[in-house]
Amino acid sequence: MRRHLETAEDELKERLLVMGGLAEEMIRAAVEGLRDRKEAPLRTVHENEETVNRLHIEVDDRCLKLIALHQPTAADLRLILAASKINSDLERIGDQAVNIAENAAVLLGQPPLERKLLDLPRMADLAKAMLKDSLVAFVRKDVELARSVIARDDAEDRLKSEAFHELMQIMQSDASTIQRALGLILIARNLERIADHATNVAEDVIFMVLGRDIRHRAEGSPQGS
Amino acid sequence: MRRHLETAEDELKERLLVMGGLAEEMIRAAVEGLRDRKEAPLRTVHENEETVNRLHIEVDDRCLKLIALHQPTAADLRLILAASKINSDLERIGDQAVNIAENAAVLLGQPPLERKLLDLPRMADLAKAMLKDSLVAFVRKDVELARSVIARDDAEDRLKSEAFHELMQIMQSDASTIQRALGLILIARNLERIADHATNVAEDVIFMVLGRDIRHRAEGSPQGS
Repeated sequence: MRRHLETAEDELKERLLVMGGLAEEMIRAAVEGLRDRKEAPLRTVHENEETVNRLHIEVDDRCLKLIALHQPTAADLRLILAASKINSDLERIGDQAVNIAENAAVLLGQPPLERKLLDLPRMADLAKAMLKDSLVAFVRKDVELARSVIARDDAEDRLKSEAFHELMQIMQSDASTIQRALGLILIARNLERIADHATNVAEDVIFMVLGRDIRHRAEGSPQGS
Repeated sequence: MRRHLETAEDELKERLLVMGGLAEEMIRAAVEGLRDRKEAPLRTVHENEETVNRLHIEVDDRCLKLIALHQPTAADLRLILAASKINSDLERIGDQAVNIAENAAVLLGQPPLERKLLDLPRMADLAKAMLKDSLVAFVRKDVELARSVIARDDAEDRLKSEAFHELMQIMQSDASTIQRALGLILIARNLERIADHATNVAEDVIFMVLGRDIRHRAEGSPQGS
């Protein structure tokens, strides 16, 4: 039974890595479509969403069956419950990427702003790296890497605040930019949310490994969506 | 053991109802502060957040211990896993209420818009009712009530789109309104997210009762955050 449980846990990890890879690809494609003003990458985002949603249901089902079948305790139980939470966060990251693609599709119908995308591609890169590292931390049970993900969330928040501030100034100096600037503000918010979800994953990893809840404490500031 | 498990499940439900009541109160106070231009209700929001965060950790801990101790299967296991997910959604609803209070605090420093709050108080009422009913559906295992919560999410989305549209027109006709209108757009988005979380809760209730996943299907359209 022990060996069977370990195999099942490995399969669970592998599924979450696949979902994470798809979610990362969705973020990349959404921002590529926005930056290069192309519709094809935006369509990819919607195609990947279907797969992520299918995996989301499959992973939840696996977690339920694993607990019912193996009645795990301690570290095994914490791993499965962490996987179940990470599963939700990955699905929600996919939703955020879809929101970005939808906002990008509207922006493609209009001329680009003079300041173009400001720091949004940088925000996307940061969020993708946080997502990737949070999943590596999960698979390797790497608390230090998880902590570094949580630490990076402040930089993402700062970039979002700067983007908000600049975009508001652009709107105020030229009313014809309002709709487009608002589109970019919403995308900046989506990217910030993705980083928040990666932070949630990192917090779940720390709880899984240490058995200690660091949420709502100074170490990992509370993140929500 | 069976009786002990049932008592523990009742305590779990009761904790989630307390959290839900606090989250509802946070939404109410945040919108009251915004509407009546008063700071006291906004402070209440932050005070309640601490309690919600404490309960969030406590409920997660209870779920983990319940599974480890009782090794529940089938309906009991589904109930505990649903409680764990609902717990996350309630904590995130609290975060959204805090975001509303933060945006409201900024708006209090500026004169109100002529159109004031548009349909935002109505959006808040709808979201609060969805939240309340989703938890009643959880405690009573009431699939019909859960379905009615899911059905109401479209109305909330429609109200949000209308508010976005009107606020963008207000910005375009008078640049001095931009910052304030943007504040209201972000609050409309927070309220929409709260309704999304209530929808997630309702979907979890249906899964818990029927053992069938309706997410990502026509019945309950996918909701994320």
